[in-house]
Amino acid sequence: MSSRSVLRVPGFRAAGVRCGIKEAGRDLALVVSDVPAAVAGVFTRSSVVGAPVEVSRQRVRSGRSRGLVANSGVSNVALGARGLRAAEAMAEAAARALGADPREMLVASTGVIGRPLPLPRIRRGILAAARELRGDGLRSAAEAIMTTDRSPKLALALARVGGREIRVAGIAKGAGMIEPRMATMLAFLFTDAAVAPPFLRQVLRRVADASFNRVSVDGETSTSDMALLFANGVAGNPALRGPRSPGAARFEAAVAEVSLALARELARDGEGATKLVTVRVTGAASAAEAERAARRIANSLLVKTALFGGDPNWGRILQTVGAARVRLDLSRARVALAGVTLFRGGAAAGPAARARCAARLGAREIGIDVHLAAGRAGTRVFTCDLGYDYVRINAEYTT
Amino acid sequence: MSSRSVLRVPGFRAAGVRCGIKEAGRDLALVVSDVPAAVAGVFTRSSVVGAPVEVSRQRVRSGRSRGLVANSGVSNVALGARGLRAAEAMAEAAARALGADPREMLVASTGVIGRPLPLPRIRRGILAAARELRGDGLRSAAEAIMTTDRSPKLALALARVGGREIRVAGIAKGAGMIEPRMATMLAFLFTDAAVAPPFLRQVLRRVADASFNRVSVDGETSTSDMALLFANGVAGNPALRGPRSPGAARFEAAVAEVSLALARELARDGEGATKLVTVRVTGAASAAEAERAARRIANSLLVKTALFGGDPNWGRILQTVGAARVRLDLSRARVALAGVTLFRGGAAAGPAARARCAARLGAREIGIDVHLAAGRAGTRVFTCDLGYDYVRINAEYTT
Repeated sequence: MSSRSVLRVPGFRAAGVRCGIKEAGRDLALVVSDVPAAVAGVFTRSSVVGAPVEVSRQRVRSGRSRGLVANSGVSNVALGARGLRAAEAMAEAAARALGADPREMLVASTGVIGRPLPLPRIRRGILAAARELRGDGLRSAAEAIMTTDRSPKLALALARVGGREIRVAGIAKGAGMIEPRMATMLAFLFTDAAVAPPFLRQVLRRVADASFNRVSVDGETSTSDMALLFANGVAGNPALRGPRSPGAARFEAAVAEVSLALARELARDGEGATKLVTVRVTGAASAAEAERAARRIANSLLVKTALFGGDPNWGRILQTVGAARVRLDLSRARVALAGVTLFRGGAAAGPAARARCAARLGAREIGIDVHLAAGRAGTRVFTCDLGYDYVRINAEYTT
Repeated sequence: MSSRSVLRVPGFRAAGVRCGIKEAGRDLALVVSDVPAAVAGVFTRSSVVGAPVEVSRQRVRSGRSRGLVANSGVSNVALGARGLRAAEAMAEAAARALGADPREMLVASTGVIGRPLPLPRIRRGILAAARELRGDGLRSAAEAIMTTDRSPKLALALARVGGREIRVAGIAKGAGMIEPRMATMLAFLFTDAAVAPPFLRQVLRRVADASFNRVSVDGETSTSDMALLFANGVAGNPALRGPRSPGAARFEAAVAEVSLALARELARDGEGATKLVTVRVTGAASAAEAERAARRIANSLLVKTALFGGDPNWGRILQTVGAARVRLDLSRARVALAGVTLFRGGAAAGPAARARCAARLGAREIGIDVHLAAGRAGTRVFTCDLGYDYVRINAEYTT
């Protein structure tokens, strides 16, 4: 997945260039499908949304798209009619450079809120990107959508569908302001499978709910988040129309694999994070309570700072579960951290278990497992620890 | 309020001593009423509660109490039947030292979860505290309930009730794990007014909701929080029985004044805080939406770190309001920070306003004012900024 030659999907070309919005680095991404593609999208549920979200949410309804233009550095949020015109102008410039219909271009922006898009730079960037489009350009496109991300997020999966090998590739950006209910970041997925738009929508919704919507870095939901899935059909499989189409399950599994890999990378690369943390809640009285407990743990500053400090503090995990006000049977509940049970049968484990746990907390991946002993529902959420760098990044990030 | 001689209430004596639970400093507080007092309490709504909460919640129902024993350092949470026995033993030792009925002693603990109370030390501490009880001992009691607090929290108010001057004094501890719905910290209030228990309960509930329940440091609710209000009647006023008793409004105002002062100190002294932040939301479509927006802002890591960094980042405030999914009219909404309007009429204020705002962000008290332009409901919440010290305190606090 890290090799340049691998992250390509037949019929898609991409580029990431620097147009000069951010202080440094690539900041404009362009991805085009050589033929019209089916498309599906999921968007932030925030009641304040950026202009690109409004534009793309509207356009994705047609189920058809030629591609996507995205920038980092400025998010084009809270600029009223002017913001809408800018988002449309950005899409139109991309369409013109590619010879596509403007209504078939989707658009995304991420970065500072309330500052206008620098359209002249963006137009120049689009022209440059159009000249650099390549089959292996998704990596540079992934770089161009980064804000405080430490590294680009890329994933690829293959599957056998209708007698053809199909590919699903994805790029994403995250870092801060990541919390569930909707995509909560930018994630763009591309497949050469042939898929009818209604089924593509179903697949994306299910997959997003089990991946992007299960990531929480800091409990924030952005104004600009979206996940898009393009399917251009170049693989030549008989189009997937529903869950019973031959190969539909394998296709969905491939999309899920890519999305889950991206979601885990989003959590791992949370601002200031040193570890990927997977919170698993079992034995909940209802799915809603499992969800509430898992998200509360994932967003608990006390839990996240304890993990950063390598402190096997099961008490804070239990306190957080209590604060979520879910049903639990304390005499049968269990709390395990990094695979070591620290609380069970109403009592704490001894110092040996705590020491064993503490020794494991230096790992790059940590599990928090909570069993509530109140029912059979469960869920999981991906998050990260929280350290000094989160404060540094967010205290010094400037408006 | 800072003078030792002032923080006293006739008929109450108090002491704070060191019994050796914390590494340093006083850690055991004892407060006694010379005559049986009316009492009311509000408690954490967490579904995991400490043994002292269980014991005190039960005992406060009688409406009568002789006093309170509290310790810091260990919270007596998640220890099952053993924890309950320890909380009862602690209350009993205090009752014996004071010649009171054990059922009339309330008990509170704050500190690490899951570690047993060191009862022999606590018993010795209670004996020492009983010998040191003084009319002006509330200050040392306030010191003895501190955990990561930087300073003890004290407040006093006077009122004329039924022809008598009555006093209301309060002590509190907070720092981390502070978030609303219930007391969310330890707060103990003492008055010499005569008040019937049912009305005392009403008053405390209303007042707590407008003060302690409006503080949020980090979105956490503790297992051990409580607020207690003792009224011993020594002032000799005709007992207040309801809102229409003469002087009832002045009494409630005095309790509210003390509680609000303590609540503001709790927010100001949040772990790692450098400023007291008052979030005011107006123009909400409903009280529930006002509440949701205000709490979301108060708990937003992105907002809190921006304030720590002195960054006039109105975009994060708006993003947070959107994430709360409340109704708003963006074209008429307003966001002001430190008294400077930064967003209004669908557009950002210019660089001059941002610079004026930034210059004010060094102040020790900051207001965030958000008008949603969607209705007439409003609320306010007290919080603080979040800086490196929050991470340091909570990454290094040990289990």
